[in-house]
Amino acid sequence: MARVTPLSGFPEWLPDARVVEQHVLDVLRRTFELHGFAGIETRAVEPLDQLLRKGETSKEVYVLRRLQEDDAAADGAASHDGGRSGEKQLGLHFDLTVPFARYVLENAGRLAFPFKRYQIQKVWRGERPQDGRFREFAQADIDVVGAGELPYHFEVELPLVMAEALGALREVGVPPVRILVNNRKVAEGFYRGLGLEDVEGVLRQIDKLDKIGTEQVAALLVAEQGASPEQAAACLELAAVHGADVSVVDRVRAIAVQHDAVTDLLEEGLAELGALVAAAGERAPGVVVADLKIARGLDYYTGSVYETVLVGHEQLGSICSGGRYDTLASDGKNTYPGVGLSVGVSRLVSRLLSAGLVTATRGVPTAVLVAVTDEEHRGASDDVAAALRARGVPTDVAPSAAKFGKQIKFADRRGIPFVWFPGEEHQVKDIRSGEQVAADPQTWQPPADDVRPRVVAAS
Amino acid sequence: MARVTPLSGFPEWLPDARVVEQHVLDVLRRTFELHGFAGIETRAVEPLDQLLRKGETSKEVYVLRRLQEDDAAADGAASHDGGRSGEKQLGLHFDLTVPFARYVLENAGRLAFPFKRYQIQKVWRGERPQDGRFREFAQADIDVVGAGELPYHFEVELPLVMAEALGALREVGVPPVRILVNNRKVAEGFYRGLGLEDVEGVLRQIDKLDKIGTEQVAALLVAEQGASPEQAAACLELAAVHGADVSVVDRVRAIAVQHDAVTDLLEEGLAELGALVAAAGERAPGVVVADLKIARGLDYYTGSVYETVLVGHEQLGSICSGGRYDTLASDGKNTYPGVGLSVGVSRLVSRLLSAGLVTATRGVPTAVLVAVTDEEHRGASDDVAAALRARGVPTDVAPSAAKFGKQIKFADRRGIPFVWFPGEEHQVKDIRSGEQVAADPQTWQPPADDVRPRVVAAS
Repeated sequence: MARVTPLSGFPEWLPDARVVEQHVLDVLRRTFELHGFAGIETRAVEPLDQLLRKGETSKEVYVLRRLQEDDAAADGAASHDGGRSGEKQLGLHFDLTVPFARYVLENAGRLAFPFKRYQIQKVWRGERPQDGRFREFAQADIDVVGAGELPYHFEVELPLVMAEALGALREVGVPPVRILVNNRKVAEGFYRGLGLEDVEGVLRQIDKLDKIGTEQVAALLVAEQGASPEQAAACLELAAVHGADVSVVDRVRAIAVQHDAVTDLLEEGLAELGALVAAAGERAPGVVVADLKIARGLDYYTGSVYETVLVGHEQLGSICSGGRYDTLASDGKNTYPGVGLSVGVSRLVSRLLSAGLVTATRGVPTAVLVAVTDEEHRGASDDVAAALRARGVPTDVAPSAAKFGKQIKFADRRGIPFVWFPGEEHQVKDIRSGEQVAADPQTWQPPADDVRPRVVAAS
Repeated sequence: MARVTPLSGFPEWLPDARVVEQHVLDVLRRTFELHGFAGIETRAVEPLDQLLRKGETSKEVYVLRRLQEDDAAADGAASHDGGRSGEKQLGLHFDLTVPFARYVLENAGRLAFPFKRYQIQKVWRGERPQDGRFREFAQADIDVVGAGELPYHFEVELPLVMAEALGALREVGVPPVRILVNNRKVAEGFYRGLGLEDVEGVLRQIDKLDKIGTEQVAALLVAEQGASPEQAAACLELAAVHGADVSVVDRVRAIAVQHDAVTDLLEEGLAELGALVAAAGERAPGVVVADLKIARGLDYYTGSVYETVLVGHEQLGSICSGGRYDTLASDGKNTYPGVGLSVGVSRLVSRLLSAGLVTATRGVPTAVLVAVTDEEHRGASDDVAAALRARGVPTDVAPSAAKFGKQIKFADRRGIPFVWFPGEEHQVKDIRSGEQVAADPQTWQPPADDVRPRVVAAS
C-alpha cells in the first residue's frame, strides 16, 4: 500500500489505499447527512483579491492564468480576444471557508438560515516543498451559518458531530480522537482583566508553549507584550488548565479571582466552555477536553475554538480544527455568524496508511470473477455476471479464456474472493478456502462481508 | 433550482440541485463498481509539458504559479528558496485521460493488468468565456488498460457499462441515451481502399457534415483532399450508413465492393463493428447505433469510437464520448493500449436542471425536525435526534425554542417531511398531510421513501 508521490506534495493513492480514503469520506458524508447537513460544492477558484484577504495563508495561493492569455500577450493580440484582459485574476482556494462565505453571500436570498452544510473537496496550498507538506489535499468541512445571529448551542453540537463521525471510523482501526477546546472570550476576558490589552500578542506567545516551553514564553510576554512577571505567570497558570469535566471552569475562575482578573467577558466565556464540556461529557465521554493553552486560531475566532488529535499520534498535529466566527461573512448590511470544523482528510488517511493502522480487504470492488471457458462462450459468462450484478454483487468477467489456473490467479492477484465457472452445472469456488460448490446465478449470494471491499484494522 | 454562475464558466449548485448531481454521481459510481472498476483519483495538476502534448486542447490549459514565486522573483531572492526555479511548471488537467496515462506508467509495476478504473473528478479548461462553455466541470471516466495487449471484447463491454449507468438514471427522469459508434479501421480501410491516403484530412472534412451539409463537404474533399468527385461521393455514401443492427456491416461492404475499396483493414473494422452492434442489440436493445459519419476523435482513436446523445436533446452534443487507443500510454519499452469513455457530468446535470427534467424532493438530507419545547429541555430533543440517527434517519433539532408554528415553518421551508414533538408522550407530525400520531423514538421509522431526499422526474 505504498504511497505514490512523485510530484512532491501532491499525494496519489494506489487502488487499495483509495478504498481506505473513500471509506473515510463515505463515513464522514453519512454522519454529516444524519445530522442534517446539506452537501454543497463550490468552484475551485476564487478571485485573487478575495483569497488575499486572509493573512498568512494568502502567501500560499496558486494563481491561475490561461495559457492563451500568454499567447495573446506575446502576439500583442490581446484585443482579438474580447477584452479578456478585463477578466478577474483567479487563484485556487486554499480552504473551504473563504469559498463558503462567498457562496453564502451570493445565495443569501435562496438559502434557509441557519444553514448547515458539509463540503468535501480538494484545496491547494503552494507551500514550500521542503516542508514536506501537502500542496493538494482533501478537506471535509461542516459549518452552520446564521443570518444575523447564531445560538451558542451550535458551538456545542458541531464538535460532537465530528466526534461521532471520527468515532464511526474506530471500528476500522482509526485511533480514538481527542477534541481540545478553548474559548476566545475566556482568554480575552482574562488577559484584559489582568490589564493586558494586546490580546492577539499574548495569544501569539502562548501559542509557542509547546515549542519553547514556559520559561521562554514568560520571558517573551515580559519582553514583547510588556507584561509584568506576575501577569506573565498568570497567563501561564491559565494556559496550564486542562480537563474533561466542568471543574475546569472553577479552576479558571479561581485563578482569575486570585489575580483580580474576573471580567464579564471571562464569565460569559466560562459559561460557554462549561456548557460545552458538560454536554460533551454526556454525549461523547472522554472525547472533548478543555485545554486553555490552545491559542491557534483564537486571533480570528470569536468564541469556541477546536483542535483534534489522534490519540497516540499527537505529534501529527491537529487533524480537525475550527471555531466560531461572529462574522463568517458580511455584505455590509447583514452579517452571517458561523461555526465550523474542518477535517484534514488527506493528512488523516496518509497517517492511517503510513502507520499501517488500517487496510482494505482488496483494491477492486469485484467480489466474483466469472471464468471464460472459450471466447465463443464469453456471452455465457457475461450472462452470469449480469445476473450477479442485478443483485448488487460486483462482478468481473475474465479478460481471456486462458487456462482456469491462470484465471484463478488473475482473481487471486486482485484479492477477488470468488471465481465462478459457468456450464451446464454452474460452480463457484472460494479461492481462499478452495471450497467449490454448485450454484445458481439467479440466487447465489456471497457472504455479506465479501460483497464489497472492507476497510479493517491492520493486524 | 436556479443555477448560480456569477463567475462565467464555473457552475455552482444550490443544495437541491446538488442533490441531483450527487445522485447522478452515486449511480455512476455504483454501476462502475458493479462492473469491477476500481476508483482512483489523480492530482489536479500535471507538468505543463505533458499537458501540451495533446494538440488542440492544450491551448485551454490553466497554468499555475505560486504567489510566492512572484514575490521571490520581484525581490531578486529566488536563490533563497531552495532552487525553486527548478520546479516543473504545472497546469490543471483538462481531462482525466492524460493523468490516467501518467498514473499507469508511474505505477505499472504495482497495478494488475488489464486494469479497470473509474475516476470522477473536476477538470478545467480555460476556454473563451463568450463560448458559454464550462471552464470547470466534473467528468466521470471509465477505462480499461492492458499491458502490451487488450482484447477487442472490452470495446464492446465499455459502452454497455455506460449504457447501463446512464440507463439507471432513467427512473429519475433522465431521457434515454443513444450511443453512436464508429470504427477507425472501417473509415481508414475504406478511404485507403478508395485511394485516399490522407485519412485524417478526409475525417476532418466528414466531421463538418452536420454543420455544412453533403454538398459542401464533397466540394472540400475534392478541393482540399484531392479526391475525385467519385471518391468524394463514395466517402459520403459511407458516412450515410446508420443502423442499430448488423445489417450495417453488409451495407458498408456493398458500398466498398461497388467502389472497389475492400481492404483487410476494412474487413477487420467491420468484424469489430459488427460484434459490437450484435452484442449491444442483445444486452441493451436500441441503445447502440452504428453511425458511420462519426469522425470526431477518429484522428487519435485507433479502433472503436463512441459518442452519446440524450434522445430529444441531441443539440446538446455528446454527453459521453470515448474510444480505443492502441497506445494510451507508452514508456518506450512497453505500450499500454486502452479503451474508455468519459461522461460530462456537469453538462448532463446542467441540462437536466435547466430543462426541468429532474427534481429533488428536498435540498436537505433531513427527514425529521425535532422541535424544542424550551432551551432548558434542548437535551431531551437531542436525545430523540440521537435515537433516530442511530437507526439511519437524518434528523435535525430546531435551532431555537420558538413557537411550534414557527418550528413547523422551519421544517416546511426546507421540505423536511416530519416534525417531532418530544414530551411525556412523544408525537410526530407529517406536515404534508397534517397527520399527527404518538410515536416512540426507539422504534418509529419514517416511510422508506422519506428517509433521504430522492431525485424524481419533474412533473
